[in-house]
Amino acid sequence: MNEPDFIAALRQLPLHPGARELLDDCAVLNLGSETLVITHDMMTQGTHFRAEADMADVAWKLVASNLSDLAAKGAAPVGVLLGHMLGRDDARFLKGLHEALDAFGAPLLGGDTVAGAGLRSFGLTAIGRATHAPVPSRSGAKPGDQVYVTGPVGRAMLGFEGSPEHRAAFDRPVPRLAEGIALVPQVTAMMDVSDGLLLDAFRLAEASGVGIALDPQAIPVADPARAGECIRWGDDYELLFTAPPSAQLPVTAHLIGIVTLLADAPVYLGGEALSDPASLGYRHG
Amino acid sequence: MNEPDFIAALRQLPLHPGARELLDDCAVLNLGSETLVITHDMMTQGTHFRAEADMADVAWKLVASNLSDLAAKGAAPVGVLLGHMLGRDDARFLKGLHEALDAFGAPLLGGDTVAGAGLRSFGLTAIGRATHAPVPSRSGAKPGDQVYVTGPVGRAMLGFEGSPEHRAAFDRPVPRLAEGIALVPQVTAMMDVSDGLLLDAFRLAEASGVGIALDPQAIPVADPARAGECIRWGDDYELLFTAPPSAQLPVTAHLIGIVTLLADAPVYLGGEALSDPASLGYRHG
Repeated sequence: MNEPDFIAALRQLPLHPGARELLDDCAVLNLGSETLVITHDMMTQGTHFRAEADMADVAWKLVASNLSDLAAKGAAPVGVLLGHMLGRDDARFLKGLHEALDAFGAPLLGGDTVAGAGLRSFGLTAIGRATHAPVPSRSGAKPGDQVYVTGPVGRAMLGFEGSPEHRAAFDRPVPRLAEGIALVPQVTAMMDVSDGLLLDAFRLAEASGVGIALDPQAIPVADPARAGECIRWGDDYELLFTAPPSAQLPVTAHLIGIVTLLADAPVYLGGEALSDPASLGYRHG
Repeated sequence: MNEPDFIAALRQLPLHPGARELLDDCAVLNLGSETLVITHDMMTQGTHFRAEADMADVAWKLVASNLSDLAAKGAAPVGVLLGHMLGRDDARFLKGLHEALDAFGAPLLGGDTVAGAGLRSFGLTAIGRATHAPVPSRSGAKPGDQVYVTGPVGRAMLGFEGSPEHRAAFDRPVPRLAEGIALVPQVTAMMDVSDGLLLDAFRLAEASGVGIALDPQAIPVADPARAGECIRWGDDYELLFTAPPSAQLPVTAHLIGIVTLLADAPVYLGGEALSDPASLGYRHG
């Protein structure tokens, strides 16, 4: 079964109301006075990291990629649970894990450790506390809203290719936790661009039932000569969000487009209709 | 790094107070009016299930083994997050998952799906709501308490070996959720016996800083001719707990021993001191 089919089948199972029909990056759990935001992402050797990767970077990225989903909900980290498969360089893994937990203020809550068996895989569950109600989703964008991204895309791509200047963007991404918390009262929809700006904009538009018209000249990219690749590559952890024109944004963000009524395609880039998600970005299992 | 070394190193990381120093099976998160109980367990091909296993059973057991940890805290399931690696018989996996979620009233909250890469591994995070405060741990047993188990051990072993009568005990274990909730106001310590009754009794005694004297004749076993194996094999999901002699137990349980001051060994079986955990039961990574 491929991933879209599997997820479609999961939607037929008994879902918690906080699962948001599995259309969002996090679950939202209302508990009396508190609202928790919960996400679980895996990383597997071969798909998410190379066999020769520094395991300290792998651990860091495992934490950062999950916390990035919390950031997109304006949630503050409470703690994480780790699913760890033992293997090469576990001491390095622990070092990167320690650094990430310290850097992002996310203490360890628990987890599980299993023996190594073939290619390694890791899982992390991140739990955050919502700082604002309602907790934004991908589906709240309204025609007339403006579309923003918090920073340039394509840095992870250049880092992956070996650019010394951008290595950290790929190896040690930083979730935009402070930005997410600052922005959450103003946004109508928010998500990170970890699968590529175009594909994630497409998903946001589809979830919201709107169109998004992007101005290619306005999108900040790490390498203007390769803008098309920069907006399609994944592993950047900037926040993509929509807000009404009246919003007073508390952090610097780049205005890259506007939300429209749904037209022939969910995303227009310049004047070009983009309707095939397969052409838009980075997909992994 | 082996599992004990890795877990010892994890204890040096920034821990959430609810992590209980990673000495318990669950994290406990106090949130104003609610207390959540959270656990994450993985299952990997080769270690936790055979390559030819029915994936419906694997999914069921992934849910059941996590909910068993909630049962031992007297927690009621709120929902689960699944980390799924795609591969053989995903439709069967979904069927078993659906059956387990229905059977135990644990809806899906979210998760992640990744491409297959070698031997498969799965993770599940289970979230429960504490029904009683304080939430019991392994460490509350007091000298003079009595030691109980909710049902016979060794059934999973016989099922694993192919006994038709006991196949379900291995393939489709049932977490003792109702029993855990009923017992929690009475117990001083509680855990499941998923790693074998002797080893888990050893851990409970060590965590509590007490001794446990077990009466081998009193321990209910699935095959009396193989009692020694039954009390050492894992994958049973009965609850092991301690309670003062005055406790009025609301469910049937087998009195199998008493809690003593710590003597030369944490566990005595009949008169025999058991001080080497390696001889006591089932250990996997």
